[in-house]
Amino acid sequence: MRVARLRRATGPVFALLEDTEALLCDRAPWEGGRPTGERTPWSEGELLCPVTPSKIVCVGRNYALHARELGHEVPREPLLFLKPPSSLLDPGGTIVRPPESTRVEHEAEIAVVVGQRLRHASAAEAAAAVLGYSCAGDITARDLQKSDGQWTRAKGFDTFCPVGPWIETSLDLGAVEVSCRVGGAERQRGRASDMVFGVPELLAYASQVMTLLPGDVFLTGTPEGVSPLERGDALEIEVSGVGCLRVRVE
Amino acid sequence: MRVARLRRATGPVFALLEDTEALLCDRAPWEGGRPTGERTPWSEGELLCPVTPSKIVCVGRNYALHARELGHEVPREPLLFLKPPSSLLDPGGTIVRPPESTRVEHEAEIAVVVGQRLRHASAAEAAAAVLGYSCAGDITARDLQKSDGQWTRAKGFDTFCPVGPWIETSLDLGAVEVSCRVGGAERQRGRASDMVFGVPELLAYASQVMTLLPGDVFLTGTPEGVSPLERGDALEIEVSGVGCLRVRVE
Repeated sequence: MRVARLRRATGPVFALLEDTEALLCDRAPWEGGRPTGERTPWSEGELLCPVTPSKIVCVGRNYALHARELGHEVPREPLLFLKPPSSLLDPGGTIVRPPESTRVEHEAEIAVVVGQRLRHASAAEAAAAVLGYSCAGDITARDLQKSDGQWTRAKGFDTFCPVGPWIETSLDLGAVEVSCRVGGAERQRGRASDMVFGVPELLAYASQVMTLLPGDVFLTGTPEGVSPLERGDALEIEVSGVGCLRVRVE
Repeated sequence: MRVARLRRATGPVFALLEDTEALLCDRAPWEGGRPTGERTPWSEGELLCPVTPSKIVCVGRNYALHARELGHEVPREPLLFLKPPSSLLDPGGTIVRPPESTRVEHEAEIAVVVGQRLRHASAAEAAAAVLGYSCAGDITARDLQKSDGQWTRAKGFDTFCPVGPWIETSLDLGAVEVSCRVGGAERQRGRASDMVFGVPELLAYASQVMTLLPGDVFLTGTPEGVSPLERGDALEIEVSGVGCLRVRVE
């Protein structure tokens, strides 16, 4: 099932998507939202970022080849960091490269949407609490990431977290691939099965630290192939079984 | 004026505090809340964390003597990081030291509550957008801070961000001091005027990166004197002109 957030004249509304029709919902699914009974046609231009999280938790160096391309060892524990909710970007939106940076790079990732509160959870409990998956970009000012030490600024600029186009709630991650194209040319491709830490382990680990709330988003790391984004680039992030997220670069 | 958030049978409610009576409000002040006309007595035990931010932005090494006590230079630019909203703790609450850490330390800080949206703001615009100030603890698992590199886990545990007891909206920071006592003995004392970067500069700097939203919280750094917290410790964080935040340690 595809859960989307649609731009409507009366404000954003959550909906379940069918091929051409949307079943509007009264609230977000992680708030207990249900279809209202209203069905309407939908178009790609109405798709908003499908998540409204209280926090965005991310993991660094979760694919061995990407860790090595940046000169790092594979970590023994998940390396957590946060992106601010203000960095979220709608599908079809525009990544703004800030003047502070001369090297803004794409990192294509599988986003996990948490459906239930998780605190000190086991991997099995975490797996059962997953609402669904989406496509995401952990856009990164690579030069600032290196010079600051802390990654908050480099990964926290407005527009640096595109997520969408929707949440797919029925997905077996086993054979899923995440890929990234810039101007139609493939730059990244990785398999969920190649993650150093799998989704249940990541959520369980994070939940030992911080309570994960319904609607929170977890970005699961990026495979090798990160590279700079230039003005006018068309960026596509695809997760097989979910769909394709398209944004542009200013 | 003191803005508080009170625990009531019908749920949390924002209020303006007088000595013994509270003027209940319909919403948070940063959402345009106004007194409803209802006045009731209030007690210290009803005080909840007075903020409900979309993000908590913090700055590291913003007092020269504290930077040096941890072996660092004073940074040339503010060093930003984030704490998750799930780390917030009510006044009177209990800091839980996680089993992952053997050294959890206090960092007493002045918290700034943002009243208006800030994006690419000047220092003057940022100063005008401050709603008020509160007392905060940037509780830190010092061992994990060093071993992880990224500070998210070390500073992101549940209960690691006590804020309160209220927001003081009428305060001239010029002569303000922040201090910290553990078991009644003073451990930290610093002057707002000794910050490396002042509040307007901090908010303006952060707003170049990420849009600050009404209700967001900014922690302004800690003076020297950080030290470990032990089971049963009574921690007091005082900001002169605001009040005293009291929490305990499990």
